[in-house]
Amino acid sequence: MKTRFEPQDANFESRVRESFTRQRVMRMIGARLTIVEPGIVEIEVPTRDDLTQQDGFVHAGIVTTILDSACGYAAFTLMPADSSVLSVEFKVNLLAPAIGDLITARAEVKRYGRTLTVCSADAFADGRICATMLATMICRISEAKLDTN
Amino acid sequence: MKTRFEPQDANFESRVRESFTRQRVMRMIGARLTIVEPGIVEIEVPTRDDLTQQDGFVHAGIVTTILDSACGYAAFTLMPADSSVLSVEFKVNLLAPAIGDLITARAEVKRYGRTLTVCSADAFADGRICATMLATMICRISEAKLDTN
Amino acid sequence: MKTRFEPQDANFESRVRESFTRQRVMRMIGARLTIVEPGIVEIEVPTRDDLTQQDGFVHAGIVTTILDSACGYAAFTLMPADSSVLSVEFKVNLLAPAIGDLITARAEVKRYGRTLTVCSADAFADGRICATMLATMICRISEAKLDTN
Amino acid sequence: MKTRFEPQDANFESRVRESFTRQRVMRMIGARLTIVEPGIVEIEVPTRDDLTQQDGFVHAGIVTTILDSACGYAAFTLMPADSSVLSVEFKVNLLAPAIGDLITARAEVKRYGRTLTVCSADAFADGRICATMLATMICRISEAKLDTN
Repeated sequence: MKTRFEPQDANFESRVRESFTRQRVMRMIGARLTIVEPGIVEIEVPTRDDLTQQDGFVHAGIVTTILDSACGYAAFTLMPADSSVLSVEFKVNLLAPAIGDLITARAEVKRYGRTLTVCSADAFADGRICATMLATMICRISEAKLDTN
Repeated sequence: MKTRFEPQDANFESRVRESFTRQRVMRMIGARLTIVEPGIVEIEVPTRDDLTQQDGFVHAGIVTTILDSACGYAAFTLMPADSSVLSVEFKVNLLAPAIGDLITARAEVKRYGRTLTVCSADAFADGRICATMLATMICRISEAKLDTN
Repeated sequence: MKTRFEPQDANFESRVRESFTRQRVMRMIGARLTIVEPGIVEIEVPTRDDLTQQDGFVHAGIVTTILDSACGYAAFTLMPADSSVLSVEFKVNLLAPAIGDLITARAEVKRYGRTLTVCSADAFADGRICATMLATMICRISEAKLDTN
Repeated sequence: MKTRFEPQDANFESRVRESFTRQRVMRMIGARLTIVEPGIVEIEVPTRDDLTQQDGFVHAGIVTTILDSACGYAAFTLMPADSSVLSVEFKVNLLAPAIGDLITARAEVKRYGRTLTVCSADAFADGRICATMLATMICRISEAKLDTN
């Protein structure tokens, strides 16, 4: 897990940040992309009343939204320049209610592969762990058609 | 899977619909609760530009948001009157891009238990399957404290 | 889910059965491959004391062993003649203790893709559901190297 | 993740080791319980031909068998003296073929709760990571009936 990853595209950070700005849902929920390092990405979202479920916690789906994007972009930092990334699947365990001022999702690549990359991520509510994800991402080279996976 | 479930609370539907209206995130993304039957719940969300990821598909996290609520409420239809429901964990496989006018999540209870209930759910984009979830829900009796699970 | 699948290799059944005989762990635990249809596979294992965990139930890992092979071979029925199949990931929910004389795992393809195939499977203990799996399988064409996924 | 756990039962190690000896499947596959610390358990199994799948790798189900027991016992180290532990669900990502002389599964408690405990575990083939698990365990107090979860 301590493996240092060597990105194959020197422009990985601007590529990730540019893609993030195209995730319109991130703007809508007020999420910010903070850390972008080789194999590591962090996204945070200040809590808002309109992100909550019936008990006033941030909805697990919103926590998942930033966990999934953090995993996808952690994988994307290691992919080639002409690629795109899509989520294959993920699992989330909810560990504690997502209450507080700020939800942070921190993802790390656990295994990088040419086609499939596995990431793990934790979400924190004001620094206290509230959820954890294990996710599989797929790399598509730009000419690849979406219907071929 | 075809087991017919017998709700123990005759008012299960109004209880579920009342809880849904308190999920403020549902209003924010424009989701509607359509079907509420014993062990079965359906939620739909019309697609909008501000729900999308970088390729213009509805973000997997938003699809997960309605899948998770559909599973939670499918379980909640079978729980006692004085209970509340929380997600323990879920797994989602993304099967196809979520493109189209309407995303629908349909959840069914797969096994009901006094403490834990397992649900499965499929999401459809304009009627074509785009994601599937397998989820575990926990029933809390109202005096139970949240930090005890 | 009711989609009828059309196998691209007419010899899919003998290909699956031949591969199953090479799974030495199946012989060791006493598992039998029963049904092999396009997109559907069933494997069963008579319970034995040496397959049990501390309470005398069949160990979840053994139930997983036949669920995983059933999913892999359900996917393999639809793959080309020169391919091989590997598990990418799976999730299992344990729904009831695996007690009885016979454990049966029945898998179906949920979405077939050229690279990735998603399967769901249920396990039954003497006909009563005891576990459910959601799995992702990958198709490797024979010249593909194992370190490329 | 670095939280040090305080076991509530001073005899946790003998309780775990005694339960492990009752897992007859462990003897059958040749698994050994090595490390038992508060919140941490390690199990290893020397590879054998009769544990393999069609390509000669240790079958994912066998890797899962020791991952699941390692997670269950890691949770069990923190549970009360009169309790028992059962797996609720787990997810496994297969990261590399399980080839080599020795497969080792190392599990850690990620969040301990009175009812539910979440564990993560990695499996290594001769020291190289080959699989990872995220699992939920449930604590049953001895008078609890199995059909109540």
